[in-house]
Amino acid sequence: MVKIMEKEFLTIDGLQLSLWDRDYIEKLQQGNVDCVSVCTCIWENARDTLSTLGKWNQFIKENDDLLMQVQSANDIWIAKQTGKIGVLFGTQNSSLYESDLSLVAVFEQLGVKMVQLTYNIGNNVGGGYLEDSTSGLTTFGKQVVKEMNRHGVIVDVSHSSDQTILDAIEASDRPVAISHANPEWIFAAKRNKSKEILSELRDSNGFLGVCIYPNVLNGTNTSLDEFCDMIIEMIDFMGIDKVGIGTGSTYNYTNEDLNYLRMGNWTYEVNYGAGSPDNPRLPEWPAWFNSPADFPNIIKGLHEKGVSEEGIYAIMGGNWFRFFIDGFKHE
Amino acid sequence: MVKIMEKEFLTIDGLQLSLWDRDYIEKLQQGNVDCVSVCTCIWENARDTLSTLGKWNQFIKENDDLLMQVQSANDIWIAKQTGKIGVLFGTQNSSLYESDLSLVAVFEQLGVKMVQLTYNIGNNVGGGYLEDSTSGLTTFGKQVVKEMNRHGVIVDVSHSSDQTILDAIEASDRPVAISHANPEWIFAAKRNKSKEILSELRDSNGFLGVCIYPNVLNGTNTSLDEFCDMIIEMIDFMGIDKVGIGTGSTYNYTNEDLNYLRMGNWTYEVNYGAGSPDNPRLPEWPAWFNSPADFPNIIKGLHEKGVSEEGIYAIMGGNWFRFFIDGFKHE
Repeated sequence: MVKIMEKEFLTIDGLQLSLWDRDYIEKLQQGNVDCVSVCTCIWENARDTLSTLGKWNQFIKENDDLLMQVQSANDIWIAKQTGKIGVLFGTQNSSLYESDLSLVAVFEQLGVKMVQLTYNIGNNVGGGYLEDSTSGLTTFGKQVVKEMNRHGVIVDVSHSSDQTILDAIEASDRPVAISHANPEWIFAAKRNKSKEILSELRDSNGFLGVCIYPNVLNGTNTSLDEFCDMIIEMIDFMGIDKVGIGTGSTYNYTNEDLNYLRMGNWTYEVNYGAGSPDNPRLPEWPAWFNSPADFPNIIKGLHEKGVSEEGIYAIMGGNWFRFFIDGFKHE
Repeated sequence: MVKIMEKEFLTIDGLQLSLWDRDYIEKLQQGNVDCVSVCTCIWENARDTLSTLGKWNQFIKENDDLLMQVQSANDIWIAKQTGKIGVLFGTQNSSLYESDLSLVAVFEQLGVKMVQLTYNIGNNVGGGYLEDSTSGLTTFGKQVVKEMNRHGVIVDVSHSSDQTILDAIEASDRPVAISHANPEWIFAAKRNKSKEILSELRDSNGFLGVCIYPNVLNGTNTSLDEFCDMIIEMIDFMGIDKVGIGTGSTYNYTNEDLNYLRMGNWTYEVNYGAGSPDNPRLPEWPAWFNSPADFPNIIKGLHEKGVSEEGIYAIMGGNWFRFFIDGFKHE
């Protein structure tokens, strides 16, 4: 399977939350993962994000037999050719920019190449999906999007409100990404995206990373079959060149970590994010994706459903790679 | 004039931007000013606001023969009785809270007792008046308002979008303030407030500080007569107990300071705030209010128009004082 393109085959994960240790790196190796976009900012300001980047730099250094930071699409090839996993600094919030436009370029110099505008709730830049759907990009947000374009930072709107997604598509000179979400007409979840939103994404050459986080599927028991069917439907809907995977992997996460993810320091009340009062805790992952070591299961699943080698190549990493080539260019 | 209540007469300015030095303190003395809410945060984050507070603390210490910090309504009396001017720490933005709810109480401990939710554009908390008028309070913003209520921090919405003002009135357990703005049907300016908004403010027992900043009047040439007529109309409209003065005084300001006020670090493009391309620079103040030394001109103007001593007492400071008593209470 996938023999023709073996040398060029890439597995790229567009969004992970996992807490890395040496064992986890080995799981990524088992899954033949070539590049992971890791979340370096969820609620933090500029100062605290610097510390997170510092910790990642140190972790990569301590494991530099297996890891390297990637700051360009070409770096992903270098990683692959030297038997390493590329670590791409992404975020799930734009709080690292505070209200300072010049920080877009500063953090890009440090390797922060894909930034999600909002995480769940509204911020300086725009609305989150838990806000009113009409909550749009702010005046500052429009400037941030343009500045991200200028400096080759990919605009990610996975957790944004509908209006903010539409405004970002409009404001951006380049296609934007939904790095990790699913169509809501297949898996009903507020965090997933409507046909209208995904049509606009598609028509603007945007990118959809389908997500394995159980709360945006039908829960832990969602089958590989259902997941692969969704991918195939998304290939039809978005086009074969506009779909990838953003697992949302939460390996080594505790419920305490989950609470911080959902509530940060912005509330004293319980917030369930993509969960609910009936489903408050960190969900178990499906048996076919316990960790990124299980990426080959997806290849197998797509193959068994008759997806072509070219199709599998595109979905597993080829599309993210092409999107990175364009998205990381400075204007 | 105003003889009966001479001992109790207070002059309180609900919002100043002026850059203070010893000469300026003398001007405040000449104007018989008893308390000024000074702007300690315009775009800054928590860390940088701490430094601004540190500088104010040091300035007050260096001038403690004439100044004292006030953290309660009673402190204003202590200041008056000891011949000092009370300095109340206010802000024109909630950026000091970043996205950390607990910072409301932390900054309240440091004396930040009146906080404007948004400055011109949208932020973590809500919409500014330069955003779409439908831009409302965010999920975090609603929590901030409640937390401000709990800790006796007055909610100021002077520069907010209409929907954010309405949402703040709704979310707040206590009356909110528009510390410095005018009715737009008297002085046409986007920054001024509509009849609908001021009705809602009035009906919720909120407070209006009328403003002397020329760009929210008819410019530099606005007469004292016109200004006093507006006050009288506002007494009729809002009620005698709900109107005060927030000058917006910009003494010692340069055009560079004005640029920072308008543009912070959030844009590289020119932003005119309450100005315009035809009126880009810091406006000259009206001849009858060159500085807070001229507060007695307003007393004179109101007196000549037949406003009662009780009315003048209320407008010049009595109303702010009462509003502070209630607003500064911890729940």
